[in-house]
Amino acid sequence: IPALPEGYQIRRINADDYERGALETLKTLTTVGKISKEEFTELINTWDKNPEIYHTLLVLNPSGKVAAIGSIIVESKLIHKCGKVGHIEDIAVNRNEQGKKLGLTLIRRLINIGAEAGCYKVILDCDPANELFYVKCGLSRTGVEMQFRF
Amino acid sequence: IPALPEGYQIRRINADDYERGALETLKTLTTVGKISKEEFTELINTWDKNPEIYHTLLVLNPSGKVAAIGSIIVESKLIHKCGKVGHIEDIAVNRNEQGKKLGLTLIRRLINIGAEAGCYKVILDCDPANELFYVKCGLSRTGVEMQFRF
Ligand SMILES: CC(=O)N[C@@H]1[C@@H](O)[C@H](O)[C@@H](COP(=O)(O)O)O[C@@H]1O
Ligand SMILES: CC(=O)N[C@@H]1[C@@H](O)[C@H](O)[C@@H](COP(=O)(O)O)O[C@@H]1O
Repeated sequence: IPALPEGYQIRRINADDYERGALETLKTLTTVGKISKEEFTELINTWDKNPEIYHTLLVLNPSGKVAAIGSIIVESKLIHKCGKVGHIEDIAVNRNEQGKKLGLTLIRRLINIGAEAGCYKVILDCDPANELFYVKCGLSRTGVEMQFRF
Repeated sequence: IPALPEGYQIRRINADDYERGALETLKTLTTVGKISKEEFTELINTWDKNPEIYHTLLVLNPSGKVAAIGSIIVESKLIHKCGKVGHIEDIAVNRNEQGKKLGLTLIRRLINIGAEAGCYKVILDCDPANELFYVKCGLSRTGVEMQFRF
């Protein structure tokens, strides 16, 4: 796993991180909308009640602001001898923090969480435009993502 | 939602279903491997401990054997105002039960579970060869699936 730049750290998200800029960072990926401190705390509590399933990591810059964020959801299945699959989700690097390989370090750490959880594979869905980034992270294309939008 | 053929039913899986042929049906999708009754029961218990997250449905034929199986995993996120996404997984129709539109009914029921759970979308990954089936179920292609295999 590539080292982070001097002064950066990576750790699990917690309910006190509301003011650190996780939501602003996620806006580089997609729609976030208005989320109150209470809603944020409630979601982190939901995640923390299922620590084997939900894992969200933050990369913090030397000022303690969120430079990158990403999650892995570990799903328990019947197939592959009651195997587990890690779903990597909601990867975002803050616009001011691009070009520092933070995304690569984050993905490698999330893959490691999947390995430690006993997953037989880790998967993610992305825009074809981001495929090359994920290939550099060691993943390869295996299927198509289909959606039904409400 | 299209009706099932006469004598067929659809319901949530439970620990007593080990002998009904769920594992044989899943073998039409991928590797299943040997799973003991104890391992099966343990996984169903894990699922039942998180009924908001894990939903697995069985279609049973008139003899009470598994004709089709499929799951939806409901993930709680930060994006989309603390939105939820349903992941449809491990869809399989028994070889002897093809051509009865059981897959279509199953997918529509799983999408309904996602709607009732408040998901803003439901997604799945598949082989491009199965894309047309999912288009008939109302889904459309939106991205690529990448994997890291351990
Ligand atoms: C690897 C990665 O980060 N993939 C993300 C996915 O996790 C996220 O949930 C989705 C949001 O898109 P949406 O706003 O259209 O649901 O975008 C991308 O597919
Ligand atoms: C919609 C659907 O059923 N998609 C399945 C997925 O749920 C399953 O987990 C995977 C198993 O493949 P694997 O044996 O290569 O992991 O195959 C397909 O992508």
